[in-house]
Amino acid sequence: MIETPPLVDQYCHGVLRTELGLGTFEAQLTSSGRPPAAGTTFFDTQTGFAVRRWCPPLLGLEPHCPPARYLARRRELGVMETGRRLLRGSGIATYLVDTGQPGDLTGPGELALAGDAEAHEIVRLEKLAEQIADTSGTAEAFLGNLAGALHAAAATAVAFTCGTGAGHGTALAFAPEPPGPGEVHGAAGRWLAARPKGGAVRDPVLLRHLLWSAVASGLPLQLHAGAGDPRERIDRTDPTLLTDFVRATAGLGTDLVLLHGYPYHRHAAHLAAAFPHVYADLGPALAHTGARAAEVLAELLELAPFGKLLFSSGGRHLPELHVVGAQVFREALDRVLGGWVGDGAWSRQDAERVAAMIAAGNARRVYRLA
Amino acid sequence: MIETPPLVDQYCHGVLRTELGLGTFEAQLTSSGRPPAAGTTFFDTQTGFAVRRWCPPLLGLEPHCPPARYLARRRELGVMETGRRLLRGSGIATYLVDTGQPGDLTGPGELALAGDAEAHEIVRLEKLAEQIADTSGTAEAFLGNLAGALHAAAATAVAFTCGTGAGHGTALAFAPEPPGPGEVHGAAGRWLAARPKGGAVRDPVLLRHLLWSAVASGLPLQLHAGAGDPRERIDRTDPTLLTDFVRATAGLGTDLVLLHGYPYHRHAAHLAAAFPHVYADLGPALAHTGARAAEVLAELLELAPFGKLLFSSGGRHLPELHVVGAQVFREALDRVLGGWVGDGAWSRQDAERVAAMIAAGNARRVYRLA
Amino acid sequence: MIETPPLVDQYCHGVLRTELGLGTFEAQLTSSGRPPAAGTTFFDTQTGFAVRRWCPPLLGLEPHCPPARYLARRRELGVMETGRRLLRGSGIATYLVDTGQPGDLTGPGELALAGDAEAHEIVRLEKLAEQIADTSGTAEAFLGNLAGALHAAAATAVAFTCGTGAGHGTALAFAPEPPGPGEVHGAAGRWLAARPKGGAVRDPVLLRHLLWSAVASGLPLQLHAGAGDPRERIDRTDPTLLTDFVRATAGLGTDLVLLHGYPYHRHAAHLAAAFPHVYADLGPALAHTGARAAEVLAELLELAPFGKLLFSSGGRHLPELHVVGAQVFREALDRVLGGWVGDGAWSRQDAERVAAMIAAGNARRVYRLA
Repeated sequence: MIETPPLVDQYCHGVLRTELGLGTFEAQLTSSGRPPAAGTTFFDTQTGFAVRRWCPPLLGLEPHCPPARYLARRRELGVMETGRRLLRGSGIATYLVDTGQPGDLTGPGELALAGDAEAHEIVRLEKLAEQIADTSGTAEAFLGNLAGALHAAAATAVAFTCGTGAGHGTALAFAPEPPGPGEVHGAAGRWLAARPKGGAVRDPVLLRHLLWSAVASGLPLQLHAGAGDPRERIDRTDPTLLTDFVRATAGLGTDLVLLHGYPYHRHAAHLAAAFPHVYADLGPALAHTGARAAEVLAELLELAPFGKLLFSSGGRHLPELHVVGAQVFREALDRVLGGWVGDGAWSRQDAERVAAMIAAGNARRVYRLA
Repeated sequence: MIETPPLVDQYCHGVLRTELGLGTFEAQLTSSGRPPAAGTTFFDTQTGFAVRRWCPPLLGLEPHCPPARYLARRRELGVMETGRRLLRGSGIATYLVDTGQPGDLTGPGELALAGDAEAHEIVRLEKLAEQIADTSGTAEAFLGNLAGALHAAAATAVAFTCGTGAGHGTALAFAPEPPGPGEVHGAAGRWLAARPKGGAVRDPVLLRHLLWSAVASGLPLQLHAGAGDPRERIDRTDPTLLTDFVRATAGLGTDLVLLHGYPYHRHAAHLAAAFPHVYADLGPALAHTGARAAEVLAELLELAPFGKLLFSSGGRHLPELHVVGAQVFREALDRVLGGWVGDGAWSRQDAERVAAMIAAGNARRVYRLA
Repeated sequence: MIETPPLVDQYCHGVLRTELGLGTFEAQLTSSGRPPAAGTTFFDTQTGFAVRRWCPPLLGLEPHCPPARYLARRRELGVMETGRRLLRGSGIATYLVDTGQPGDLTGPGELALAGDAEAHEIVRLEKLAEQIADTSGTAEAFLGNLAGALHAAAATAVAFTCGTGAGHGTALAFAPEPPGPGEVHGAAGRWLAARPKGGAVRDPVLLRHLLWSAVASGLPLQLHAGAGDPRERIDRTDPTLLTDFVRATAGLGTDLVLLHGYPYHRHAAHLAAAFPHVYADLGPALAHTGARAAEVLAELLELAPFGKLLFSSGGRHLPELHVVGAQVFREALDRVLGGWVGDGAWSRQDAERVAAMIAAGNARRVYRLA
C-alpha cells in the first residue's frame, strides 16, 4: 500500500446548491450537454459506475447500490449534508477552484467550509473580461480596467485559467506571439460594439491578449486541452497545438499547466518533459475513465518527469465528482506505483516520495501554497 | 467467469467457397494485398497466432499446431465441413453480413445455414450504385433507379455501409452537408459518361449523396474508420474527421456506427460519448490484435457509454476469422470485466449486464432485431 | 522465463570519454537540452529510475542507491572501467553505431573493445554531406564527391540514417519523390555559397537527395520518427507523414527502418504491417518508458508482424543508457510473451522463437550480419 498525503486538488469547480432528481443528477455525469441515446443511461459509464462504487458508503449505503436508492438517500440527507459528508470523505485538503463557470455554484469559501479544507481561487480570464466589458464604455476604458482587474486578481488568486478550450489552442497554434497594442485595441473596440450584455469573448486576438496578460502576471496559467468539451472536434484539443505558444513563453518565469489532455495525455507528458515551465494535469483523465484510471495514469508516467504531474479531481456540480476524482486517483497511484515496487522496478521509498509529489507537493510548489 | 449470451456479429463478410493452400490461406490473414517480406510470414502476426490458438481444436487438432498441419486437416475435411465446424463453434447466433465485397463469397443465407444461425444483410452503398449504373443510361435514370433501389434495400436490409473507407472520411470532413440536386446530377452524368462497365464510385459528391440517402432511410449507417485498409494513409482514417458529418446528422433519427477505429478507437469512443446517435464497433480492433484484445477493449471502455459499444468479428473470406473475432472478444470481455469485478470496481451483476449489452443487446436494439 | 539470445543493438551512439559529475550526468538522462524545472531533477524520470535500478549492481552497489552514491562509485572506477563493466553487463553482442552525432564519443571499434562485442557503422547522411561540403569548392565537385563517398560508405557501413528527425518527415510528406538533377544542383550551389564551414544541411531538396541516394545504395535506411528530439513539434514526427515516401520506395529492394516512433509507435507498427520493406524499432520507446516498457512493447506487438520488429538501445553518451535499453527490453519481452504463454494465448515454442527474432534474428537478416 502506497501512502498518499492529503490531496491538493489543483483544478475543480463548485457544487450545485439545489436538490437533484434522478434525471438531473444523471445529466451531470457527462459534460456532453445532450441526452443519453434511447435505451441507454449515463449511469452506464465509467463515471457512473465509479460514483456508485465510491459514494454510497460515504452516505451509509452499500457500494454499487442502484441509482434510485442512492438518489433517495441523497434527498433524505439534503444537499448540504450530502455535500459535507462527501467532501469530507474525499481526502482532499486543499481545493483550487475555477470560479468562472456559469450556474449557481458554491464558491471557494463554501467548498472549504463544507469539506473542512482550504480553498483558493483560480480566475477564469474570459469571465473577468466579460465582467469588465459589462461596465466599460470604450476600448480604452475596457483595456485599462482589464489591466487593473488582472493585477488585482493576481494578488489574491493562485492561478489563471482560460476555459475556451481548444478554440484558443487553434488560435495559438497559428499566432503564438502576443498581439500588438493596436491589434488588441481594434479587436476590443469591435467586440464591445457588437456585444450584447453578458456576451462571451470569442475573438482570437482578445483571447491571446488575455493569455499573454496572464503570462505577464507570473501566476501559473492553466490551459484546457483534450476531451473536456465533448462538442469540440477532438483533434483541435491536442495540446501539441500549443507547442509554439509553449516555446514563446519559455524562460519568462510563468508556468503553464496543461489540464486534462486525454486522449492526448502522452502528448501533454511529452511537453512536460521537453519544457521546464510545462506541467501536466491528471484530473478528468482519471476521473472519467474510472476502472481504467491506473492505466491512464501509467501512460502519463511514461514520459513526464515525476515533478511535473499534478493531481486534480476536475469535480464540477456534484460533490460526487470530487470524491470520484480523489478516490480513483489514490487507488490508481497505489496500483501503479505499488506494482512497480512489487516488481523491483522502483524502491518503496522512491514510490512514496513520488506519490507525495503528485498528490500534493508539486502543486504546493507550483502554486506557492503554504 | 463473466457469462456472455450468444453473440450478434454486427459486421462481417461471407467466406470463400474454394479450397485453400498454405500460401493462399496465409494471404487472407492480412488485408494488405502485398506479399510478406522475405524471411517473414503472415502466420507470425497476432491474427496468425490467434487462428492457431482457437481453430485447430474445432477441427480436432491441438492448439498452436503448425500451419501446414492445420491446412492439411482443413483440406481433409473439405471447405464446406470446415466452415460448418468453425462457424458452429464460434458462438455467434446472428450474422449481419456486408454483401458488397468482391469475390465468390457465401451470402447471408449460406452463412446462416453453415453456422446454424440467423443472418441479415448490410447493403454496401457503392456496390448498389455501381449495379444501378450498369443498367442506367442517363443521370436521370440512374438517380431515379438508385432512389428506388435504396428504398427497396431499406425494407429488407438491417443497415447500410460505405466501404470506401477514409476516402469518404476526408470528403465528409471538408463538406459534411448533403450535396444539392444539381451538383449530384452533374456528378452522376460525368461519372456515367467516363465509367467503364463495373467501374467504382470514387466521386466525393456521389459518395456524399449515397451517405445522405442512407441517412434519410432511417436505417443505421456503418462508416469505416481506422486501419481497415493498410494502403490508406492512416491519419486519413481517424473517425475524428467525421465530426462535422456527425454534427450534421445529429437529431435526424438515424444512428451512425463507426466500424473498427483502431488505432483511433479512443476517438471513436469519444464520439460515441458525445453524440447520442453514434455507436462504436469492437470488431477488427480486437480480432487483429489477438493476445492484446483485452487491452484494446479496455481502452474503448474508458469513454464510451456501455450502451454504445457493439461486437463484431469483421470476419472475411476465412471462417477462421469469424471464430477468432468471437473467441478473442469473449475472452477479452471476461478478462476485463472479470478483473474489475475482482477488484471491487464493478459489481458482478453490472458486469454481466454490460457483457450482455455489448455482446448482443445493444445490436438488437440498434438494428431492431427480434 | 522467456530466454533471449545475445542482443543485436540496431541503433546506438558512442559514449563520452570524460568523467562526469552529478549535474553533467543528470543532463544526459534527457535529450531536451534544457535544465530541469526548479525543484525537480531528471533523476525523477523513468530513465533515471531505470538507471538506478539496473546499473548500480553492475558496479557492485545496491539497486536504487542514491544518485550521489552511484556517481561517487563511477568516479572511483574511472570512466573506462565503468564503461567496460556496464557494456559487458548489458547482454548486447553486436552494436550498430550511428557515428554522426557531434561530441567526443567512442567509435564502433572502441565500443566493441569495451563491450567485448562486435560493432558496425551506421553512416549519418547529413554528416557525410557536411564533411564533403567542407572540402568541395563547387556544386559539381560536391555532388560528385558525395556520390563517391556514399558509394564507399555503402561498402563498409551496415545502414544509412538521417538524423534530421521530423524535418525530413515533413519534407517527404509534401514531396516524396526524388528531386531532379537540376533542382539538386541548384540547391547544392545555394547551400555551399551561404554555408559557413561546418554548417548543417537543412535544405529539404538536399535532404531528399541524400535519402534517395541512400535508397539507391540498397543498404537499409533508418528514419527517425517520434519523440526523439523534445524540441520538435511532436505531431511533425508522426511516421504516418512518411507514408508517401514509403509508397514511393516500395519494391525498390531497400528496407526502411522507422526508429523510435513513440508516442506514434502504433502507427509505425501499422506501416510495418502494410509494407513489406518497412520495419519498426523498439529502442528508445522502451528505454525511455522504463517500468512501462512491457506495455509499450505490447502495443507494438498488436499490429506489427513479428518479423518486422527490431531491438535497439538507443544508448547515447552514457553506457548506462545502453544497459537500460537492453535490460528493460529483455524484461519487457519476458513479461509480455511469458504472460501470453501463461494464458495459453501463445505456445512457449512460438514465444521463444519470436523473442529470438526480435532480439537478434530480424536485425541479422535485415542488416545482413554474419
